[in-house]
Amino acid sequence: MGVGQSIPRLDAFEKVTGTARYVEDMLPANTLHAKLLHSTFANGVIKAVNTDKAAALSGVELIVTCFDVPQTRFTTVAHPKALEPERAEIADRLMLTSRVRYYGDDIAVVVARNAHIAKKALKLIEVQYEEYPPLLTIKDAYESRDKPIHEEYPNNNQLAELCYYVQNNKLVTMEGDSVRSRNEETFRGATEDSGDAVWSDETYKVPVVQHAHLENISSFAYMEGRRVVIVTTTQSPHILRRVVSEATGFSVGDIRIIKPYIGGAFGNKQEVLYEPLLAFLTNKLGGRPVCMLLTREETFINSRVRHAMEIRMQCRVSALPGKESLGRAITIRSNKGSYASHGHAVPSHAITNTSHIYNGDFTIGESYSIFTNLPASAAMRGYGIPQVAFAVESNMDELAVKLDIDPLKLRKKFMMKPGFADPFDPTPCGSNKLEQCIDKGAELIGWDQKRVEYAKGNTGMLRRGVGMGIFAYKSCVYPLILENAGCRMILNQNGSLTMQVGATEIGQGSDTVLTQMASEVLRIPENKIHMVSEQDTDVAPYDPGSYASRQTYVTGSAVKKAAQQLRDRILTHAAAMSGLSVEQLSLGDEAVMADGKKRFTLEEVASHSLYNKKDSQYLITEVTHTCHSNAFSFGACFADVEVDVPLGKVMINQIVAVHDSGYIINPKLAKGQMHGGIAMGIGYALSEELLFDRVSGKPLNNNLLDYKIPGAMDIPPMQCLLVDDYEPTGPFGNKSLGEPPLIPTAPAIRNAVFFATGASIRKLPMTPQHLVESFMEHGLIPKIEH
Amino acid sequence: MGVGQSIPRLDAFEKVTGTARYVEDMLPANTLHAKLLHSTFANGVIKAVNTDKAAALSGVELIVTCFDVPQTRFTTVAHPKALEPERAEIADRLMLTSRVRYYGDDIAVVVARNAHIAKKALKLIEVQYEEYPPLLTIKDAYESRDKPIHEEYPNNNQLAELCYYVQNNKLVTMEGDSVRSRNEETFRGATEDSGDAVWSDETYKVPVVQHAHLENISSFAYMEGRRVVIVTTTQSPHILRRVVSEATGFSVGDIRIIKPYIGGAFGNKQEVLYEPLLAFLTNKLGGRPVCMLLTREETFINSRVRHAMEIRMQCRVSALPGKESLGRAITIRSNKGSYASHGHAVPSHAITNTSHIYNGDFTIGESYSIFTNLPASAAMRGYGIPQVAFAVESNMDELAVKLDIDPLKLRKKFMMKPGFADPFDPTPCGSNKLEQCIDKGAELIGWDQKRVEYAKGNTGMLRRGVGMGIFAYKSCVYPLILENAGCRMILNQNGSLTMQVGATEIGQGSDTVLTQMASEVLRIPENKIHMVSEQDTDVAPYDPGSYASRQTYVTGSAVKKAAQQLRDRILTHAAAMSGLSVEQLSLGDEAVMADGKKRFTLEEVASHSLYNKKDSQYLITEVTHTCHSNAFSFGACFADVEVDVPLGKVMINQIVAVHDSGYIINPKLAKGQMHGGIAMGIGYALSEELLFDRVSGKPLNNNLLDYKIPGAMDIPPMQCLLVDDYEPTGPFGNKSLGEPPLIPTAPAIRNAVFFATGASIRKLPMTPQHLVESFMEHGLIPKIEH
Repeated sequence: MGVGQSIPRLDAFEKVTGTARYVEDMLPANTLHAKLLHSTFANGVIKAVNTDKAAALSGVELIVTCFDVPQTRFTTVAHPKALEPERAEIADRLMLTSRVRYYGDDIAVVVARNAHIAKKALKLIEVQYEEYPPLLTIKDAYESRDKPIHEEYPNNNQLAELCYYVQNNKLVTMEGDSVRSRNEETFRGATEDSGDAVWSDETYKVPVVQHAHLENISSFAYMEGRRVVIVTTTQSPHILRRVVSEATGFSVGDIRIIKPYIGGAFGNKQEVLYEPLLAFLTNKLGGRPVCMLLTREETFINSRVRHAMEIRMQCRVSALPGKESLGRAITIRSNKGSYASHGHAVPSHAITNTSHIYNGDFTIGESYSIFTNLPASAAMRGYGIPQVAFAVESNMDELAVKLDIDPLKLRKKFMMKPGFADPFDPTPCGSNKLEQCIDKGAELIGWDQKRVEYAKGNTGMLRRGVGMGIFAYKSCVYPLILENAGCRMILNQNGSLTMQVGATEIGQGSDTVLTQMASEVLRIPENKIHMVSEQDTDVAPYDPGSYASRQTYVTGSAVKKAAQQLRDRILTHAAAMSGLSVEQLSLGDEAVMADGKKRFTLEEVASHSLYNKKDSQYLITEVTHTCHSNAFSFGACFADVEVDVPLGKVMINQIVAVHDSGYIINPKLAKGQMHGGIAMGIGYALSEELLFDRVSGKPLNNNLLDYKIPGAMDIPPMQCLLVDDYEPTGPFGNKSLGEPPLIPTAPAIRNAVFFATGASIRKLPMTPQHLVESFMEHGLIPKIEH
Repeated sequence: MGVGQSIPRLDAFEKVTGTARYVEDMLPANTLHAKLLHSTFANGVIKAVNTDKAAALSGVELIVTCFDVPQTRFTTVAHPKALEPERAEIADRLMLTSRVRYYGDDIAVVVARNAHIAKKALKLIEVQYEEYPPLLTIKDAYESRDKPIHEEYPNNNQLAELCYYVQNNKLVTMEGDSVRSRNEETFRGATEDSGDAVWSDETYKVPVVQHAHLENISSFAYMEGRRVVIVTTTQSPHILRRVVSEATGFSVGDIRIIKPYIGGAFGNKQEVLYEPLLAFLTNKLGGRPVCMLLTREETFINSRVRHAMEIRMQCRVSALPGKESLGRAITIRSNKGSYASHGHAVPSHAITNTSHIYNGDFTIGESYSIFTNLPASAAMRGYGIPQVAFAVESNMDELAVKLDIDPLKLRKKFMMKPGFADPFDPTPCGSNKLEQCIDKGAELIGWDQKRVEYAKGNTGMLRRGVGMGIFAYKSCVYPLILENAGCRMILNQNGSLTMQVGATEIGQGSDTVLTQMASEVLRIPENKIHMVSEQDTDVAPYDPGSYASRQTYVTGSAVKKAAQQLRDRILTHAAAMSGLSVEQLSLGDEAVMADGKKRFTLEEVASHSLYNKKDSQYLITEVTHTCHSNAFSFGACFADVEVDVPLGKVMINQIVAVHDSGYIINPKLAKGQMHGGIAMGIGYALSEELLFDRVSGKPLNNNLLDYKIPGAMDIPPMQCLLVDDYEPTGPFGNKSLGEPPLIPTAPAIRNAVFFATGASIRKLPMTPQHLVESFMEHGLIPKIEH
């Protein structure tokens, strides 16, 4: 009972027995099916759409084209509304578009009696269009300044930038030109090592990947009178409600969003996707239910992807004891894809993080978001940090080689230390056990021995290596964006508790840990606490939703506060029942205690409170908590690999991950998050890349057969540990955990391969093809002439 | 905007366009259908049930017999739990029974893939049973003291009694033997008129009738993990949850009751019906959804009916000016049917009301509930008063004839006057405009002229009459039973309001009037207020539900209180935004005002409150209101009829109803309630009676073809008026309205027939057959020898 226990997930039984209801389980009888007509080119404009033949097909109820939808542009990012207009999210989407910006863009939609008929009708639609040459790479888009992908932002196809210069961990400037000239001046002509310092200038590339959550993007909508109800796979029902209002003209109060069970999300369901279109369609259809169930192929392309990035690392570093210095210029060019979505927030998050994790003499950070004719990139687990961590952590190992020191030791010299103050944020960051994470991980993997032992044997075609990576990750979005969370609690008349939060369970286990927190304060066992897992915006407390690994930290504080208020109400009523003062009473296990003895059961108090005729009270509390703090979580990942050099094949023998996430509410669930994050990191390292035809931009592997995510057989033995820590700003000493485990995994594997082979891989994923090419470059195997 | 306006019903659009979702609209895909095996005899025991053949039928998923269900007896009445154990409701039901108590009792249930298969399977079940002679009348049941219908209450088949002696409007005793001997002494040998007083001793009979709500009894249940969800046609979701817990052993927190739109209820859906069985079935079926959709035939017999009663009226009355006296003994024998349900509450309510509406020198009240082998009787609109009003009001007109005075004037002499104090309840009763109701009604119907004019012409075969009836009806169940109500309000960020109450909209319009109340306090127009009409016990505030015409009175007070609290929160936040004090601010229409000018829109305040980073607050309030008052509503109904004597046919020319329901929140809806009540009263007067075979107890007309409820063509012109009044204990001066309009209608029609023909009808309904027999008795038409 309470925090710190590895109780089973609350929803384990439902999920295992199949009674958990997902969007597709809830389709009303006679739901119509909507299917999208996607563009078959990546850049251009639709001139005309002829739907006559399609409309004549029996069973087709409605066809809507890009010329029929409201021309109100809306944002698709689920962030709380900023009160300052200048901080508003970019609104660049229409429900359907005549300006095609990626291969698969949405031109029209057919609503039919079933999906089969709808698909048949799609083939009968005739489209006239004008095609432009697709701009698929950052370079192409940069260079085609006269051919804007978004005519409304004809800014050289660059959406935005964020630059800074931080010196001695103090922010000097964020003015772009000033930062760029500082970069220019500082490193002009810097090509050589000088004095005790080594110099490096390398560029790292990470690919487009996709969330590949188990459950595809699924929604349906219908009208209740003049109100529209949307049941959908969303991480952020309350924000979605506001955005649907902005997009459709329905007032916020006339929109009801329902979020049932969700089969994984990883940031992709933080997006507003087809909900506005569905609201528009059901309204046109007199309120009949309409569903949009994306296929896997559509989910890959028509929802969101992770930003591909090119990250240039210019570094001068000295590790000489007493003369340690680190000066870096880091430049991120981020492939925004076709729509703004989160705008520049992801590269911003990435570039600022580089000055957190290591802070030497100075960091010059530059980041740029470039529109291309690829699917839109947006939030995905780690929000830019996995990308930049690949560059920073790979670079760290390369510098260590140049400096001829252990990369673990090099990290320790420059990494964030306790007492660190974020130059971008005046709030102090409390707990930091990063060093303990590294030490424990090194011990478990046998770092020192293996670095010596493996180095000796690495001459043949099978080579072994150990590598590592570290990270620092915040626990919410304070102070950049509003951080708030609501919680409502009802003490039922039998002494059991019903809880509601606006925060969303999306598979990560938040309902379980939030329940444990309530249990901790109220001394009610978790099996007598019912968490209302489905958010219905009509009745759910407000919460921006599941993102930024914020829920145990921010929503947890709301839960704690609500539970404390409810405790006070319980004790106040028990005082009235007993004639004792509130101070003489306290909560015991399902009981109110006085003088160390059980005075009433909770059922007695709850029942009396509700049923007494004098002053009946249903014991309810509800709070909104505003968060005014943040906290870094930390961790180190170690990989032990074997590389088959001629085959370009990496076998992972072992992963060790050690995290500092503060006090752990549920150790087993925490490790589950680590397992999942590591698995996703393995995919990022070795196999995942969404490929597009280089000429047309057509997706080539948007399915789970051709796009390889790790399966159970691909996962090596994992040792996951959490060091003891207590974060003072966390409701129970806890801080973030959801996203981080992914971050250092790919760098650790990459560095292990680097150690094994000496080949400095600077591009993910490390597919056999890529590795073989790299090994040829590095002279490990003979080059094949093409 | 606000109270006193005839805004359209909130749900009019949904209901007219068919988007309102009722239970049957919500069945999940693949819902299994449960069908009941009903007994084909009225009294006896099941010896054995052979389900082998039925179980072998393809598509049959489960068969459960009376020998397979838990043997925990439960109550079926949805009343709040009394904290005092001695006040607990009678628990005499099992999910299925081997002791058959009425024709149609539930012996077994088949669950199958569809209803067709389930019905087929029912026919294959073989039942061995022992039959007892059915006890179908009060007399038979009384006399068969050795053959108890409920072996657990072998009390001469009498469930309970409530007796009292009230003298000069003071309660003297409620001790049964004492009351009975007082009756005996007072009226011993009283058979003659004496002095100025006339004497009368007559018995009146009212039949078994049924609610005949448009939507049959419908429910389905499924499991969410270990929790059971029941979607059902209930008036009282929260109480249902508790009773299902008591019946099934599921804990209260593990039960979720959902009440969607309801197509009429009239008290019948205040009963717990098949919800416990459905919970049991879905649990046995691994959580698969199971529905039970009663047919009309089943709804008639297997839900509940109105109590048939025999009411003896012994009266001695004098109307001589200055010597007015009224002494009465009223004895109710109530046909309980086969199960306790509301126990003795309905006859109790009826017998106490007789001393409210008229109070002269004394009233001796006796009431008895007798079990018979008929369907169980329970709550139905008026809760016993329509029955007793027929007796009391008919008797009043008969006394008036004996006294040779206008029955209107006789009523005025003895009816409840302003300042009346209920002898059973120390709470004072405030407003009373009964006299104005009578005067206004008399004026509208043309009472004085018609009484003279019609009397002259009433000699032929077509005769005309005017008659009247009056009533007094309370506004809730205080102080007998706990009266509480909850309300939660959310001010959305666009300044619109979302409201939740635990009280249930069942067609009566409560959602609309409660919304008007919120609008009144908060100055938000009703079209920007969204009432969550569906009660889900996981999230709904507590409320015992729709009964006793309590919602505008009790729940209205909760709404007012919540709105006032929300107003305070709004003004407090606006004060912080503006730097002004709360006292300087007030609410205007969708705005906060200062110095008589608009300072902020409500949207600005709501949005700032939610989105400000300093102290974000979702503007929510929630209250539980405990009611400590009660109030009588009043009304008079007048009927103008033409009687075709040889055909025994009554044509109603006009109905005039004038009510005092305090301040009227929505005049149009109020009149709608009056229209509906009058229509139901016409059915009660003229046609409705559920008939049973006198030997077997088999229902003879349990369908809407043979059981005649008035259709649109049967409804005469109705004039409905509401006198101006203001009830100080009502939240907005309002008091009850839902049930009352039914009460005086049948008496008014009966008295009009009496006036037209001189035939003192003492039994309802006044069908042609009954009238012809009566007219023969009275010599209006020649007797036919049988």
